[in-house]
Amino acid sequence: MARYQLVIVRHGESSWNQENRFCGWFDAELSEKGVGEAQRGARALCDAGFQFDLCFTSVLKRAIRTLWIILDGIDQMWLPVTRTWRLNERHYGGLTGLNKAETAAKHGEEQVKVWRRSFDTPPPPMEKEHPYYCTISKVRAPILHQHPYYCTISKARRYESLKSCELPTCESLKDTIARALPFWNEVIVPQIKAGKRVLIAAHGNSLRGIVKHLEGMSDAAIMELNLPTGIPIVYELDENLKPTGPMKFLGDEETVKAAMEAVASQGKVKK
Amino acid sequence: MARYQLVIVRHGESSWNQENRFCGWFDAELSEKGVGEAQRGARALCDAGFQFDLCFTSVLKRAIRTLWIILDGIDQMWLPVTRTWRLNERHYGGLTGLNKAETAAKHGEEQVKVWRRSFDTPPPPMEKEHPYYCTISKVRAPILHQHPYYCTISKARRYESLKSCELPTCESLKDTIARALPFWNEVIVPQIKAGKRVLIAAHGNSLRGIVKHLEGMSDAAIMELNLPTGIPIVYELDENLKPTGPMKFLGDEETVKAAMEAVASQGKVKK
Repeated sequence: MARYQLVIVRHGESSWNQENRFCGWFDAELSEKGVGEAQRGARALCDAGFQFDLCFTSVLKRAIRTLWIILDGIDQMWLPVTRTWRLNERHYGGLTGLNKAETAAKHGEEQVKVWRRSFDTPPPPMEKEHPYYCTISKVRAPILHQHPYYCTISKARRYESLKSCELPTCESLKDTIARALPFWNEVIVPQIKAGKRVLIAAHGNSLRGIVKHLEGMSDAAIMELNLPTGIPIVYELDENLKPTGPMKFLGDEETVKAAMEAVASQGKVKK
Repeated sequence: MARYQLVIVRHGESSWNQENRFCGWFDAELSEKGVGEAQRGARALCDAGFQFDLCFTSVLKRAIRTLWIILDGIDQMWLPVTRTWRLNERHYGGLTGLNKAETAAKHGEEQVKVWRRSFDTPPPPMEKEHPYYCTISKVRAPILHQHPYYCTISKARRYESLKSCELPTCESLKDTIARALPFWNEVIVPQIKAGKRVLIAAHGNSLRGIVKHLEGMSDAAIMELNLPTGIPIVYELDENLKPTGPMKFLGDEETVKAAMEAVASQGKVKK
């Protein structure tokens, strides 16, 4: 019998998703489409009357802004929010900033296939010479206002408190899940078990970690699962935090149908 | 010698400021002017290169949105944010929702003068019959989107965790300061002393509490001080958290000059 409820949301499209570039820990902004996705997610939660007690997100603005748009839309801006690097997107190391064509040209089609299909092969590390390692690069926020944005990765102030063994220079999906799950187990689970209604706004790969863990999915199965963006995903959980049914998508009929078909067509989601 | 720095910001104009209604714990939205004020404040902090470690705000959206606009504008959305009812605006009790004319008509000009001039006389309490006590009233967000907003005060979920002795039904300025200062002393001060650069986005009266405490102002003096809205106020503090100079306003020359003149013309700010 369902005892707890959990809602997770993958952030909407970012400016780098649009350009098909490996984003990872680069702090890309939501695209206008991504803002729209988050707003539709907010509307779906609002219409369904969802109330939360605690929110969790990453330290990357595409997830934080997705959460802000949702909190605004459901009129729960007052909720406590915890930000953690452990919910960040997978760190793509040396691939960060490259688009698919550039990656293939630089590393070869075969190598790209290996990275794509492997659960535990990390991409090459982000070297100190990488343009996003510590260079301060000004990019312009594509939406909302015209302030200059400053982006760095490995030398960013937001990661100062990490031990050197914690700060990755690249991650396989396995690595991402391995650093996300301690936060799930040690911080989020006790809150859910204390009866708190939790909302998590995060990234494709950190959320894969939670989904894999909840559903007991194989390494191969989680590789095949692409969560839809901007659509609130609801889990009903029993007293041991095992799902009592499949994940449910919230939204208008058309959005939900498209998301279900997309996930189903990924097909071989074997347990 | 200055050892620490503190930045406080009073939220920009709200829709109820515009209408000259007692707002207090009613969760009014920023007006368009208020959004613009927060954006100018953000720009001033960005231009001056301010970096923070921790942020504090109330559980009211006009302060939270002010903080969001600033964090966005200075590209520090990843900063930890703590929301607390102790930084809320003064609770205006039974006056909540009344404009000045309505207040005078209902309670008489003489009584209004007493409330206005007194440091420690609270307004009448908010009774259970008050339209904002627990009635769910739909108001429309004046900006950003068109979702219905639900507002209650004493029965709001955000105050559920308060002890009954903590939840006010009305407050004098003295009462507001008395519940704001424990948070300042017990939560914010240890962080500042640990070297954390703190940003507080809050309300006219909760910030008066902090300013009165920092500057050792008399009850009469703090009554005379109206902090400017949306303008970052910078304090340099010594190792005992005593200001090493007067508060400084951040902004373009014209904004700062106007704010300084406004504060100076309140004149009798006696220590």
